[in-house]
Amino acid sequence: MNDKLTELKSRLREASDFNSAASVLYWDQTTYMPPGGAEARGRQIAALQKLAQERFTDPAIGRLLDDLQPYQESLPYDDDDASLLRVTRRDYERQTRLPAQFVGEMAEHSIASYQTWIKARPANDFAAVAPVLEKTLELSRRYADYFPGYGHIADPLIDESDPGMTVAVLRPLFKALREQLVPLVDAIAAQPVPDDSFIYRDYVEQQQWDFGVDIVRHYGYDFERGRQDKTHHPYMIRFSAGDVRITTRFSRNNLVDGLFSTLHEAGHAMYEQGVAQEYDATPLGHGTSSGVHESQSRLWENVVGRSQPFWSYYYPRLQAVFPAQLGDVSEGAFYRAINLVRPSLIRVDADEVTYNLHVIIRFELELALLEGKLAIGDLPDAWQASYQESLGIQAPDNRDGVLQDVHWYSGLIGGAFQGYTLGNIMGAAFWQAALRANPGVMDDIAQGEFAALHGWLRDNLYRYGRKFTADELIERVTGAPLTIDPYIAYLRGKFGELYGINGS
Amino acid sequence: MNDKLTELKSRLREASDFNSAASVLYWDQTTYMPPGGAEARGRQIAALQKLAQERFTDPAIGRLLDDLQPYQESLPYDDDDASLLRVTRRDYERQTRLPAQFVGEMAEHSIASYQTWIKARPANDFAAVAPVLEKTLELSRRYADYFPGYGHIADPLIDESDPGMTVAVLRPLFKALREQLVPLVDAIAAQPVPDDSFIYRDYVEQQQWDFGVDIVRHYGYDFERGRQDKTHHPYMIRFSAGDVRITTRFSRNNLVDGLFSTLHEAGHAMYEQGVAQEYDATPLGHGTSSGVHESQSRLWENVVGRSQPFWSYYYPRLQAVFPAQLGDVSEGAFYRAINLVRPSLIRVDADEVTYNLHVIIRFELELALLEGKLAIGDLPDAWQASYQESLGIQAPDNRDGVLQDVHWYSGLIGGAFQGYTLGNIMGAAFWQAALRANPGVMDDIAQGEFAALHGWLRDNLYRYGRKFTADELIERVTGAPLTIDPYIAYLRGKFGELYGINGS
Repeated sequence: MNDKLTELKSRLREASDFNSAASVLYWDQTTYMPPGGAEARGRQIAALQKLAQERFTDPAIGRLLDDLQPYQESLPYDDDDASLLRVTRRDYERQTRLPAQFVGEMAEHSIASYQTWIKARPANDFAAVAPVLEKTLELSRRYADYFPGYGHIADPLIDESDPGMTVAVLRPLFKALREQLVPLVDAIAAQPVPDDSFIYRDYVEQQQWDFGVDIVRHYGYDFERGRQDKTHHPYMIRFSAGDVRITTRFSRNNLVDGLFSTLHEAGHAMYEQGVAQEYDATPLGHGTSSGVHESQSRLWENVVGRSQPFWSYYYPRLQAVFPAQLGDVSEGAFYRAINLVRPSLIRVDADEVTYNLHVIIRFELELALLEGKLAIGDLPDAWQASYQESLGIQAPDNRDGVLQDVHWYSGLIGGAFQGYTLGNIMGAAFWQAALRANPGVMDDIAQGEFAALHGWLRDNLYRYGRKFTADELIERVTGAPLTIDPYIAYLRGKFGELYGINGS
Repeated sequence: MNDKLTELKSRLREASDFNSAASVLYWDQTTYMPPGGAEARGRQIAALQKLAQERFTDPAIGRLLDDLQPYQESLPYDDDDASLLRVTRRDYERQTRLPAQFVGEMAEHSIASYQTWIKARPANDFAAVAPVLEKTLELSRRYADYFPGYGHIADPLIDESDPGMTVAVLRPLFKALREQLVPLVDAIAAQPVPDDSFIYRDYVEQQQWDFGVDIVRHYGYDFERGRQDKTHHPYMIRFSAGDVRITTRFSRNNLVDGLFSTLHEAGHAMYEQGVAQEYDATPLGHGTSSGVHESQSRLWENVVGRSQPFWSYYYPRLQAVFPAQLGDVSEGAFYRAINLVRPSLIRVDADEVTYNLHVIIRFELELALLEGKLAIGDLPDAWQASYQESLGIQAPDNRDGVLQDVHWYSGLIGGAFQGYTLGNIMGAAFWQAALRANPGVMDDIAQGEFAALHGWLRDNLYRYGRKFTADELIERVTGAPLTIDPYIAYLRGKFGELYGINGS
């Protein structure tokens, strides 16, 4: 049995190593690669990903899993070996359901679709992407059909990034959330708009960089096992347990874009750095879902990084770095500015409150497309109507409307957006549990101390990697299934106080 | 026939892509990787290299080469397809002669050997590496024995980096060179030593960086298809025709180390950037030998970069960058300082003239080891005796003696050093031909213009990649086999004038 487990782990490590190699090539492509390298690099990454996929779906893996099933069944559910076999089986069955030819077709379409979008967006040309989206929708439906027995056609797509999540769970959750958010946004909109003009003064990039790095170092992001580099669209990437990197971008005329991007990606990275070392290069050695990942990035970015105690400690330090720009700005004014709530057109620039409405709009439109209730040709109008309904605004053109996000233009429709809002909901649930377990966390934060919070998250969430699903983690940590209550309480508490609408 | 050639190229491209991926991982490992990434990275690189080797030695490649042999024979020698088939056959036969088990044993020993050396050198502990070297010597002999019929046991090892070169050619060439160099070094040693103390003043790193980058950009190194980064031991690396990078290092207290390292690596990189684009990802798509590569790195570093016309243009510019440090130093004094000839212990720090004696010492010692005429235990003493004989100096200990270079401690003895001096000899031959074809080159250099020289080298050397061997290139370019005469003439001319010993 032991020999077979060793062989399985060795095969899984090999597949993981080829995936990691592809990741290094991608990281280089988006940080340092000179323009001339693009053509060969695309081919090299594709070759490595195909190889990793071939190795992971090798029938020998299936045979080893079969042979090891009695061993798995002899172990407790939460045993590491049992968990490895369970999660590997889930991945293997999922990936072997998709024929290699279909995977190839998806990969090709994904590249073609992205290439079309990258030109169509600046040209405001929805007509150019419409036929591509038709094909994307068809592929997405075919994708789902490789997993017969689903409750909703989007479920197999959602399951890819948020295993176990279904439309049956998400729809009522998001509906309830929306019902709470819209009046909250309206109540805030009725209040005076705080001044945030000083955010857009001139801030030297290196000083922004140093300030952000200092914070995430204090958070507990380990630079001996990571680093930060600049890129166009920030992301976190894992090459191994000992090498989990973040990327960021800065603007001289925006103090907070780069800073909160650093905090956000560091949240993702601390999750990955916290996964038990011994899971590295196995299917257990990653964060468990898109939702749980976002719960951590958004917890460190927003719940901690945009909190009053946090800035009571850091604002004098920020002022010391930028005396000319912030000398005339009080801590309270700064705190209000970085938490300004205002309906806006662009999801990635949205505040904590309205952000979820952007996500829910996309989620509902995806479902309508997949259900056949909405035609691609009607998507731009449906987009505008949804924004009008939820946020009371409309984009002047499709550039900042239906063309704004890369997700649908990357080759699949469905499953890409729910994680963001799930992350907010889960993050608040985890946060509540963390506060219950460590009542001093807020005081710590006001001292620039994060060790207790980080340690608790590591011990209760991070270290498990993919051993437990998101649902299982929520149950273990909070003792109950996921609800929006902690998140609504958090938003009402924070923004009620900020905008003086506590009674709303 | 066409289908088979297409299939062959596709298989070769795949093997090349996996090698390139390994190279990207290596580049990252030596430039940006955080310490925590080391363990997984070593494993990932090894997996990719093994995979590339497996793909290249796949029997299907052998069958395609056999099937394509009639096609190859129907074409002229210098046809691209014929050359691809010829060079691929040569590589394939070479690599398939080595059993996979032996390649694995070498790879493991190489890592173990390097690990031993990296600790033994600072500890001045030759006894620690001696048993490792015994094994290295045994492996090197076994390596050679997989290529029966060689003239000298070192020939198969030399053939690895300098295809076609043999001890029968190199020994008399190096002997003749040594006979010319020793009296030249003696004659120079009898002259007053120029002052070079100003080289070691305090020079801000970023200004050093910018000055070097400006020069290599003017040389013709294309930053759209390359970039420079910092590392401990500078090198050039190719990922594709469109991505050929250099690395360098700087010292605040040494103005020239970083600068000439940049020029040297840019020489290598311009060679790789100049290889015909259509050879990319095939066995033709690289420089043809270690010797020809060094001929270009050393040509751009020394023959151009340490020449009087070059500094007549660049020295005023360097003074403008560093007025406090160089304001009191004349162009002549600077030129003498960067061409100071002085017997020294460390090969990589040696000047243009004595450098070759360092190489010839190592070459002769390798041959003696492989021939069984020198025992590993006697190597340190033999090293000291050789330095005494050739350079008149001895290292105080083995650290700066037999332990100084990584080469023998990387898993093979033989074939690693000859390329450096071959490069000097070939470089002078190519340089003579370039001057004959472009009599205005020296005047160009004095104007900071390098396009004619670069263009001539690209058209006559670089673009051929591995299509022609070093011997073939020399014959094509100079019309005769390689001799040391142009190199001796170059050294006598330059250093005779510098040291006022023209009659020597």
